[in-house]
Amino acid sequence: MNILVTNDDGINSNGILALVNALKKLGKVTVIAPDRQQSAVGHAVTVSSPLRATPVHKNDEFFGYAINGTPADCVKLGISTLLEEKPDLVVSGINHGPNLSINILYSGTVSAATEATMMGYPSIAVSLDSFDEKEDCLVAAEYAAIVAEKVLKTGLPKGTLINVNVPHLKKEEIKGIKLTKQANSQWQDSYERRQDPRGQEYFWLTGVYITSSDDPDNDDSSVAEGWVSVTPVYYRMTDHEFLKEMKASFGL
Amino acid sequence: MNILVTNDDGINSNGILALVNALKKLGKVTVIAPDRQQSAVGHAVTVSSPLRATPVHKNDEFFGYAINGTPADCVKLGISTLLEEKPDLVVSGINHGPNLSINILYSGTVSAATEATMMGYPSIAVSLDSFDEKEDCLVAAEYAAIVAEKVLKTGLPKGTLINVNVPHLKKEEIKGIKLTKQANSQWQDSYERRQDPRGQEYFWLTGVYITSSDDPDNDDSSVAEGWVSVTPVYYRMTDHEFLKEMKASFGL
Repeated sequence: MNILVTNDDGINSNGILALVNALKKLGKVTVIAPDRQQSAVGHAVTVSSPLRATPVHKNDEFFGYAINGTPADCVKLGISTLLEEKPDLVVSGINHGPNLSINILYSGTVSAATEATMMGYPSIAVSLDSFDEKEDCLVAAEYAAIVAEKVLKTGLPKGTLINVNVPHLKKEEIKGIKLTKQANSQWQDSYERRQDPRGQEYFWLTGVYITSSDDPDNDDSSVAEGWVSVTPVYYRMTDHEFLKEMKASFGL
Repeated sequence: MNILVTNDDGINSNGILALVNALKKLGKVTVIAPDRQQSAVGHAVTVSSPLRATPVHKNDEFFGYAINGTPADCVKLGISTLLEEKPDLVVSGINHGPNLSINILYSGTVSAATEATMMGYPSIAVSLDSFDEKEDCLVAAEYAAIVAEKVLKTGLPKGTLINVNVPHLKKEEIKGIKLTKQANSQWQDSYERRQDPRGQEYFWLTGVYITSSDDPDNDDSSVAEGWVSVTPVYYRMTDHEFLKEMKASFGL
């Protein structure tokens, strides 16, 4: 099996190394990842500047390319152009920080998996519920490999990817894998107004995350309770119900 | 009525000016838009650098702020911090280039409307089916105002935005407004390999767009046939059908 690994924390992150080592037992792993941190880039694609691919040999741990672009760029350029063989699976992560609820829209990690799915390749996004970049990702990597093995065996529907979030707990404290739905949690945004040394005003994004507790089977609350959350995600975005209503309310 | 206008082509684009002028008859319009072109940024949010807001008086045509950020940044910073009154409606556009089918995932124009919707404000994304930045956007702006007036009157469901795409035709050639679904069209990516003057290799994204003709009521084919496409879009991304299957196939 050929497995392409990417992420949004950059090719030198802890998370990608742990992921590669856990996936090696399932097949040949190639890494094509951003050359630097690309968090919160959403589904950005580089269209107005050229991309560079720098070959990387990470000691003897992996071979791959560092790309001066976004996670989606890595998947597009990797699969279309750089890889000699098409991948059987694309795995993105392990992200330092969870990608739950509405945050999957902002997530570079998930966007890489989305891009692979749009190109027709089964994909998984994996995130650890801790923003500490020095965090040990070994337990999360084990769970990534468990899910990857299942996906390689059973496949995924066209257009659907798997979003995995692992709690920040010791292995023995984790309750196991739970199949979940995307939660309706939300950000309440705010910005800190500051002045630079020249007296000019600027703004830093802050904000409070309001978790939704409407459904115990959602991704957010499952991770909080100690489960590894596994959510099937797709991008069929037509609101069919409102479409019917609109025919009347819009008089069309 | 207070209307916030933004876009991804930047505050000095033709499209935003035409949109503002068409919306003035519906209420007080404020513009908060990127200070430069931000196409294909997807739902990127600036988290690791400070944002600046520069007041802009565009002759007597509009007042607003230029932001050194993405379309989603403009909506977040604008609504949370810069605007004195919360908007009754957010309109993003008019984009030079269509945002149909899967392209709405890559679209800065749509991501601004998405951000507004996630914050609880009704929103509309408007795009013209022409990539020519000098294109006259007056007809598209008229249709934007028609849809905006309906949204202001009837409202939208929580979490749903309206994606409008206008054909590149003369007013009298346009067939009218059609309610549509998101198409399943796809990009077949490729990259051109080139060498820079120092002999180093780099890559430019190209690619072919494969239109889906599986449904005559989809956004893609409706615009091609001369209709103004109006699609209700939401982001409930759990694949519930596969979730049921997974319980069996994943043995969970």
